[in-house]
Amino acid sequence: MSEFPSPADLEPNEAASPRDSDRPWQRLEQLADAGDAETLAEYLDSLSAGDQALALSRTDEIHHQLVLTTLAVEDAAELLRHLSESQAAELVESLPAAEAAAIVCEMPSDEQADLLGDLDDNQAAAILEALPRADATAARELAAYSDDEAGGLLVREILRFNRSTTVADVITTLSENADEFRDYDVQYAYLTDDNDRLVGVLPMRNLLFARRSDPVDDIMIANPLALLDSTPLDDLIEFFDIHHFLGVPIVDADGRLLGVVHRNAVDYEATRAAESDFLKSQGIIGGEELRTMPLLQRARRRLSWLSINIVLNIGAAAVIAMYQDTLAQVIALAVFLPIISDMSGCSGNQAVAVSMRELSLGLVRPTEMMRVWLKEASVGLVNGAALGLLVAIVAVVWDGNPYLGLVVGVSLFFNTLIAVSIGGTVPLVLKRFGFDPAVASGPLLTTVTDMCGFFLVLGTATAMLEHLI
Amino acid sequence: MSEFPSPADLEPNEAASPRDSDRPWQRLEQLADAGDAETLAEYLDSLSAGDQALALSRTDEIHHQLVLTTLAVEDAAELLRHLSESQAAELVESLPAAEAAAIVCEMPSDEQADLLGDLDDNQAAAILEALPRADATAARELAAYSDDEAGGLLVREILRFNRSTTVADVITTLSENADEFRDYDVQYAYLTDDNDRLVGVLPMRNLLFARRSDPVDDIMIANPLALLDSTPLDDLIEFFDIHHFLGVPIVDADGRLLGVVHRNAVDYEATRAAESDFLKSQGIIGGEELRTMPLLQRARRRLSWLSINIVLNIGAAAVIAMYQDTLAQVIALAVFLPIISDMSGCSGNQAVAVSMRELSLGLVRPTEMMRVWLKEASVGLVNGAALGLLVAIVAVVWDGNPYLGLVVGVSLFFNTLIAVSIGGTVPLVLKRFGFDPAVASGPLLTTVTDMCGFFLVLGTATAMLEHLI
Repeated sequence: MSEFPSPADLEPNEAASPRDSDRPWQRLEQLADAGDAETLAEYLDSLSAGDQALALSRTDEIHHQLVLTTLAVEDAAELLRHLSESQAAELVESLPAAEAAAIVCEMPSDEQADLLGDLDDNQAAAILEALPRADATAARELAAYSDDEAGGLLVREILRFNRSTTVADVITTLSENADEFRDYDVQYAYLTDDNDRLVGVLPMRNLLFARRSDPVDDIMIANPLALLDSTPLDDLIEFFDIHHFLGVPIVDADGRLLGVVHRNAVDYEATRAAESDFLKSQGIIGGEELRTMPLLQRARRRLSWLSINIVLNIGAAAVIAMYQDTLAQVIALAVFLPIISDMSGCSGNQAVAVSMRELSLGLVRPTEMMRVWLKEASVGLVNGAALGLLVAIVAVVWDGNPYLGLVVGVSLFFNTLIAVSIGGTVPLVLKRFGFDPAVASGPLLTTVTDMCGFFLVLGTATAMLEHLI
Repeated sequence: MSEFPSPADLEPNEAASPRDSDRPWQRLEQLADAGDAETLAEYLDSLSAGDQALALSRTDEIHHQLVLTTLAVEDAAELLRHLSESQAAELVESLPAAEAAAIVCEMPSDEQADLLGDLDDNQAAAILEALPRADATAARELAAYSDDEAGGLLVREILRFNRSTTVADVITTLSENADEFRDYDVQYAYLTDDNDRLVGVLPMRNLLFARRSDPVDDIMIANPLALLDSTPLDDLIEFFDIHHFLGVPIVDADGRLLGVVHRNAVDYEATRAAESDFLKSQGIIGGEELRTMPLLQRARRRLSWLSINIVLNIGAAAVIAMYQDTLAQVIALAVFLPIISDMSGCSGNQAVAVSMRELSLGLVRPTEMMRVWLKEASVGLVNGAALGLLVAIVAVVWDGNPYLGLVVGVSLFFNTLIAVSIGGTVPLVLKRFGFDPAVASGPLLTTVTDMCGFFLVLGTATAMLEHLI
């Protein structure tokens, strides 16, 4: 990530300019067909990130390939970095491995690893094959880490000096390689001993006040905070919550400096995690879906989730089937079954959301089921009473039979209590046993509350059948 | 935000140390009761951010007050900054205005504004009253901006020099005020003319290579990118997507420099927005809920959402009531109504999630209803056929009547198509007319798909009644 604006970047702000075309993809196709790298790069620069994504999503694979091969490799790499990961992967998949490799070369090491991880295995292998040997080795090492640990988020492009270097040498290196270092995190240099072990951090600012003949050793901060490459994302988020640093050096088990994880990378992953929780809770699992993906892939992914749900649903409906006789005699009950089912689902989902939020803030531990249950039960008593009363009144007004009101009102009261109890505690249980609460809480909740709700309504109705007929 | 680790910060990492107590709140209460500022600060430092939040959430208001007043004001300010905004507001509300003001004074200007915005109006006014006049004026100005525009996110604590200052003067100022500037964004200085208008940005690094007698004018980047104070959050997110800067200077309509918005602040708000979408889609509206909040507040907020849903639900159930006669004759239909309702809701929610994601990535415009509808309809045809077939088989196997299978299978097929069509397009419509898709999509979707599903099942059953009995 480039940390300094160069004069060339600092043209009057184009990003905020109004869209000069309603259909940016048409202009993009024209320019790609014309094959003029410079005009194409200028046009893309004039688009907002959203419009770049939009224009590319509306062009076909041939034009994806044309755009990426027409642009200079560094511009193509820049373009990919503005897109969401799934869209970037889609674009790169249109390219032959050699051309993809040339573009991947221009990306910082953490984004290389991200992109390669999003491609299918064969293509990732082909691109690695086509990279220069040193780059390929580095990319393979990073790709071995997962996205949610420090090793998968670090950048290797850092300022790194031996502790015996002098201030003058550092300043000379900086000024001689100004171009290369533009893309680095240049607020700190990291100092190592002869075995590549991290020994200190040098704030660039300290160079201003130092004698040029001093070794950097004298002005460094010794024993700096560092984290292991295996540090999980949650601990990184927490580290940056507590420490207001822009980056943290990452070392291996022997203390050797591997690179730096920037705050930005951690924030980005935290946002992705929150967005992904939302998608998963709505039944979009197995990766982000874009509507430009092939129909059968989209349908299959959605269906994998739906088919689990329909089986659970049929299980719950079996409860209704057991009580068919009661239902046949008091058909009015059938009107209320979907209300009980939907409303309990709504109440339960609220409790799920609050538990997931408290888990992510650290305000509750996965073992504290009883505490959560007590807090939820109290809300369930209040809301269950309110909703139960409301639905009872509706039943009595509509049907005229107070016993029908009693059955549906009491059932909704108890089922609300059950729904918030399960909704509140299920994410804790899932988390404790290593499952993803965002994916599994919803279906589990719905199944149990449906079954209980149907049992409550139809069971009490059966017991009071003489008053209902 | 402090950008440099000072040696004092750089003790071996305590954040990652294992919890030394299972009940950190008990130790916290003991230390607060003892009233020793230093031991208390040390203990809090030894806790992770999550455990700080946890410990405070488990102590009562008296201890909140004790902790905040025992700590040195800068430590208290630091503590508040680690907590979520709703929890920080809860803590500050336990304090008398004068003591709260002393702590607020120590926070950076953007976080002051955030915190004051989260307090109730009377207390915010009382704290403003108790602040030193200059701080109060500044805080009032920032508080006038909303959280989702540049003015509400900017920090005023920046390095700012007149363009005629010499390099030597800048270096002297930096070294003389090293302590104060530790908390600033010290990668750039911002240069203004005699009317406070922004004229340039000075990367600190350039100081290394400059002659000390030069005016900073000579080594600054002229005409830097800057954004207006009214720039909305979405445009800021986009700006930082495109430009790999750590901050952007913010100017008023006359070009006067107001402060800087940091990338961190924008990333933080982006994460909050994603989390808030998740909470709202699950029915947690009107602000984040923590289980430490008063019961009636929690119950009331959740109920406000549930009561809208139950009214919509009753509306949909009225469709069933219309067809009671059919239902009474073919009671098996009652078993399938909740399945049709739930499954259509699931399919529709998937489409809602994909639309919201595409809207946030800019991959679809709110006007492109037809495009989204075509993409969804194709998935709906595939998944509707699969689910319809499955439920038809279940019906036939269970009931033995192929016509029952036909009714429920065909109904689920068409209702899946309807659900994805509505789910995909409703977020676009809501967004286009200025409503929040995260809040309103779910209930609208459920109501319409329930009504259509019940009509389809019971309407076709009525038409084919002779085959079903």
